Amino acid sequence: MSDKKLTNKKLKVAIVGGTGYTGVELLRLLSTHPNATLTVITSRGDAGVAVADMFPSLRGYVDLAFTDPDKAQLSECDVVFFATPNGIAMQQARALLTQGVRVIDLAADFRIKDIPTWEKWYGMTHACPDLVAQAVYGLPEMNRAAIKTAQLVANPGCYPTAVQLGFMPLLEAGIVDVDYLIADAKSGVSGAGRKAEIPSLFAEAADNFKAYAVNGHRHLPEISQGLTTMANVNVGLTFVPHLTPLIRGIHTTLYAKLTQPTDLQALYEGRYADERFVDVLPSGAHPETRSVRGSNVCRIAVHQPQDSDMVVILSVIDNLVKGAAGQAVQNMNIMFGLAENTGLEVVPLLP
Amino acid sequence: MSDKKLTNKKLKVAIVGGTGYTGVELLRLLSTHPNATLTVITSRGDAGVAVADMFPSLRGYVDLAFTDPDKAQLSECDVVFFATPNGIAMQQARALLTQGVRVIDLAADFRIKDIPTWEKWYGMTHACPDLVAQAVYGLPEMNRAAIKTAQLVANPGCYPTAVQLGFMPLLEAGIVDVDYLIADAKSGVSGAGRKAEIPSLFAEAADNFKAYAVNGHRHLPEISQGLTTMANVNVGLTFVPHLTPLIRGIHTTLYAKLTQPTDLQALYEGRYADERFVDVLPSGAHPETRSVRGSNVCRIAVHQPQDSDMVVILSVIDNLVKGAAGQAVQNMNIMFGLAENTGLEVVPLLP
Amino acid sequence: MSDKKLTNKKLKVAIVGGTGYTGVELLRLLSTHPNATLTVITSRGDAGVAVADMFPSLRGYVDLAFTDPDKAQLSECDVVFFATPNGIAMQQARALLTQGVRVIDLAADFRIKDIPTWEKWYGMTHACPDLVAQAVYGLPEMNRAAIKTAQLVANPGCYPTAVQLGFMPLLEAGIVDVDYLIADAKSGVSGAGRKAEIPSLFAEAADNFKAYAVNGHRHLPEISQGLTTMANVNVGLTFVPHLTPLIRGIHTTLYAKLTQPTDLQALYEGRYADERFVDVLPSGAHPETRSVRGSNVCRIAVHQPQDSDMVVILSVIDNLVKGAAGQAVQNMNIMFGLAENTGLEVVPLLP
Amino acid sequence: MSDKKLTNKKLKVAIVGGTGYTGVELLRLLSTHPNATLTVITSRGDAGVAVADMFPSLRGYVDLAFTDPDKAQLSECDVVFFATPNGIAMQQARALLTQGVRVIDLAADFRIKDIPTWEKWYGMTHACPDLVAQAVYGLPEMNRAAIKTAQLVANPGCYPTAVQLGFMPLLEAGIVDVDYLIADAKSGVSGAGRKAEIPSLFAEAADNFKAYAVNGHRHLPEISQGLTTMANVNVGLTFVPHLTPLIRGIHTTLYAKLTQPTDLQALYEGRYADERFVDVLPSGAHPETRSVRGSNVCRIAVHQPQDSDMVVILSVIDNLVKGAAGQAVQNMNIMFGLAENTGLEVVPLLP
Repeated sequence: MSDKKLTNKKLKVAIVGGTGYTGVELLRLLSTHPNATLTVITSRGDAGVAVADMFPSLRGYVDLAFTDPDKAQLSECDVVFFATPNGIAMQQARALLTQGVRVIDLAADFRIKDIPTWEKWYGMTHACPDLVAQAVYGLPEMNRAAIKTAQLVANPGCYPTAVQLGFMPLLEAGIVDVDYLIADAKSGVSGAGRKAEIPSLFAEAADNFKAYAVNGHRHLPEISQGLTTMANVNVGLTFVPHLTPLIRGIHTTLYAKLTQPTDLQALYEGRYADERFVDVLPSGAHPETRSVRGSNVCRIAVHQPQDSDMVVILSVIDNLVKGAAGQAVQNMNIMFGLAENTGLEVVPLLP
Repeated sequence: MSDKKLTNKKLKVAIVGGTGYTGVELLRLLSTHPNATLTVITSRGDAGVAVADMFPSLRGYVDLAFTDPDKAQLSECDVVFFATPNGIAMQQARALLTQGVRVIDLAADFRIKDIPTWEKWYGMTHACPDLVAQAVYGLPEMNRAAIKTAQLVANPGCYPTAVQLGFMPLLEAGIVDVDYLIADAKSGVSGAGRKAEIPSLFAEAADNFKAYAVNGHRHLPEISQGLTTMANVNVGLTFVPHLTPLIRGIHTTLYAKLTQPTDLQALYEGRYADERFVDVLPSGAHPETRSVRGSNVCRIAVHQPQDSDMVVILSVIDNLVKGAAGQAVQNMNIMFGLAENTGLEVVPLLP
Repeated sequence: MSDKKLTNKKLKVAIVGGTGYTGVELLRLLSTHPNATLTVITSRGDAGVAVADMFPSLRGYVDLAFTDPDKAQLSECDVVFFATPNGIAMQQARALLTQGVRVIDLAADFRIKDIPTWEKWYGMTHACPDLVAQAVYGLPEMNRAAIKTAQLVANPGCYPTAVQLGFMPLLEAGIVDVDYLIADAKSGVSGAGRKAEIPSLFAEAADNFKAYAVNGHRHLPEISQGLTTMANVNVGLTFVPHLTPLIRGIHTTLYAKLTQPTDLQALYEGRYADERFVDVLPSGAHPETRSVRGSNVCRIAVHQPQDSDMVVILSVIDNLVKGAAGQAVQNMNIMFGLAENTGLEVVPLLP
Repeated sequence: MSDKKLTNKKLKVAIVGGTGYTGVELLRLLSTHPNATLTVITSRGDAGVAVADMFPSLRGYVDLAFTDPDKAQLSECDVVFFATPNGIAMQQARALLTQGVRVIDLAADFRIKDIPTWEKWYGMTHACPDLVAQAVYGLPEMNRAAIKTAQLVANPGCYPTAVQLGFMPLLEAGIVDVDYLIADAKSGVSGAGRKAEIPSLFAEAADNFKAYAVNGHRHLPEISQGLTTMANVNVGLTFVPHLTPLIRGIHTTLYAKLTQPTDLQALYEGRYADERFVDVLPSGAHPETRSVRGSNVCRIAVHQPQDSDMVVILSVIDNLVKGAAGQAVQNMNIMFGLAENTGLEVVPLLP
């Protein structure tokens, strides 16, 4: 990240689907963003309710009420964020794009380029394959140039963000066995969304740890697509997600077999030297999820235990920030020529 | 709070004792404060260690290393915060004050005006009773005028902040039986400080709830002093603190018997109408500690259950912010003529 | 508790509604109860599912599958536990009682003697007021004799158990001002049941503390009824429940004004000397919820802070055991002449 | 496990070092063990203190006070458990063994057969290498026959128990590439012991997740030794431990590359068919740590994601039970000819 040009531009911003965790997180970040004006927030179920009545943390920061999506004036906005379930943005994006509104989808509708793969994992027919082709995958550290001019950005998933940033330097350098990549990932419970489901209850998820979806998680094809792009060859990935009793946070532990001796610390520090939101820790460090709580930073540490040929990469993000709303704002900043960190310099909350 | 005058003043700030939770919280808030420059942070045990090595959340925000307190150039600062154990600030304050440095003590050395009472509860002889007389108790909503010109501010305790803000309108109005006030208070574990003690271990404090110090907690005389000032008559207070498995947060449930019919909601809204950091919730609401997580706001709700003559006040704060570091920065802002909310507009982190 | 007569009796036991937290807790306790044979467990939604598939903790202990309630042979059982939502047991109890089956309702259908009061708080018409009159309120420490011969037991609520056991010695002794009793109660999240509701989500309830239902909770009339019986005069009670991030546990902090000097410690120790499941802690102690985790014990401590005339009683229970399933088994033991602690000597799990 | 022969034997049992978490857990299990009489519990720092004053959960179950270790009559006992820090048991075991007392060490003194390896990892000179040679590694599922006649048992570490039970069928069958075994392990905070250390504080460990000791953890050589024995050839293991905000529980996720097609589910079910304390879950399941909370069971699930050649094994234990005190009691039962599950049939506490 570099260009910190000052600007007085005030973007008119809409959020479609503002009552979930990515929605409230967008509100937190955008409510103090110096170049954004929250203009519309939609919710079908809660139309008319003041946002700050639902989320008292926003009292004094957000004065809007939720609007019925059928009545929302989205076309007057500069950018619309979709913080909706999968399958919604693909129904509405074309109309907005046609009217010159730029779209950032925080769901999965535009993340996977191969339509049959998407349809298999998400269990529905895609409404607009042509827009998938046009969409830019919004991982700035990988696709910054394309994001700058994108009309439609597919904001990456939370696990995919942490895993891809962790593996990227290794794969770009071509120094590991790409047939046996392992991503052992642990997520806080907010990753399941603000949905009334028994497994996400406090009395179910607290003081408990488990793996889930070992045989196949929707983020697997998204990650594989990204890693394949980086490696420029098909990769073999085993991805095991776990649920851990955190509110926020993802920790990934990545394993790969080194095929040639390399100064890994230097490789990572070099690759991310200019990235504001990727922090390579000193050799020997162990990143903690709380060190990025509430922040858009991804912290990474590189290990080669016992001097074996096994590389172990540790990466942490806040799943709601760099794994969702923060990265979406970062993408907005890039798309509109703002300094990439505008509105995102929130110091992590520790303890 | 009112005067939002712009200023370009950059205060040189020192923190004595920066390795505890109030210390790191001061660092979090001051590192992005537009009118403060962190100049010195002392720690006897960790001199030479980079602050960001101890608290990785501050990487990129704080470049300082801890300084040995014997070598720290405190006298060159505009203001010194003491985030030290009780009994330290009273040893060092006079020298600083003499040199024109203003002092904000986050410990208890200057909070209680009656020296024998202080000495009884804190178990030591006070080093400078004359400075206690001169010190201003730093609860802005009560003492703003005096804070403006104070050289030495005694920053209130965490429980005392939440309890006093909760009771203040009732006592100032003289409408409750002051002989039977009850404060049932619940605190997160960070209130015990960043000290290696068995009762504060995760495996002791998680999934557990208990009262403690029912027969007498050090914050009792501090609260009683404040309530007596508000009521202008001696009060009878029962104060029961509890430990609850939160990292941050205090919730107080206050009980008082009403002696005359009053529109309590109007009373509270009126009393705090101009206070930026006290938020009176709508009638019937229940404030949550997470609604102020990381923020300097105290939220209050007023209840009169079943239309009895028992008033129940609920107040929540973040014990490390409005209950410690945030209030200290608020006091600094007042002392130096800055807008009171400077550097304190951090949106609470929810979820 | 006294009579530990040996018995070889094996009771046939049914549980109606076995998929909630009180249901699984009944299963845990009854699966190793030496005088009970789990015979039927019903669930409309999960009929056919093996209990141990839903609750893997019971693998090896419970071999049953859930039965459709319409096909369950309840009349062949000696006792039926209703672990159902309010309003179910009152529809089905008469048929069972007529067939000589004894019934223990863990919901609220038979707890409140005054039918209009019950109907007001529970929002439905009562199906069988005559059975309410006949039902025995199953707080053994208060009603043991009546429970022995009861055909229908109303198992107390969780808050009412902790509050009533805490206040009982004071009220029976007639030594406090009954017009101003305060019960400040804190409950773990399992108290809300195994229901998919947003406020009970981990990401909502973890690291958060709040009061709720300050203006009136359904347990208020139940507690008031009990306290009035103990005091033999109407009482004035303020009851404020709170949600705290525990899986299990209730802590109540009870306040009353003493009207005459009394040796409170001796009063409590005397009152509960023969009670296996009430443990009066030494003077000055603070009971922790974890000290009863998984156990049927209520621990109580008595305080008189600062030698004032304010009594502070602290009581803790496991809301799912002494506050629900454990007390139900205790009642079953009494009803069938078993030693009262049969199957209930589970050492609390600490840490 | 099979022989459930009844016995009236009452073993006299001593615990050296009873104030840590493995100590209190031994007390919980032994206090209701039908064939054990708790006779002595030592603690240098807390001699004279009633056990139940320190651990109120044991009120009514343990009447002993802690004894000064210098005055403890250990030689009169049948068996002595060492729940002490590393390096203590090796100083005292010989004297006890000479007097015919059997010894079970819950620390690491006798776990590693290769003395230089032990001395390197534990940083001290071993006091009795000959006893190491004589000691039996107390993993019953691997060494049951030897344990039966052992005088000195080295109780396995918590991680080693979960990892070895997970890998054992694969390695015994010789069907995976032993050069690239990965054990990604997650532990609750009680694994760090009841020691006053800052990283174990609630405010540090709650709502936080991190790896630690990636470059080398003391359990690595213990696990490698066990896996090598199973595989009958040296293995290459990468072991990454993580800290997760649980009180109790270990979850391991194990990765190995299959070298020949195998019915893995049948392999595991067959291998553990007669093991009371290893539970192989149905195909496709994901074990949760809470499903073994408070219990001596290890639950295992076997996965082969996406039909690749990568095997993923999930295993969970309660680190204080099967990972420490419970396994120690299991070993005692075996050593003294008791049914292996005596005193260990505690239903897991869920939720």
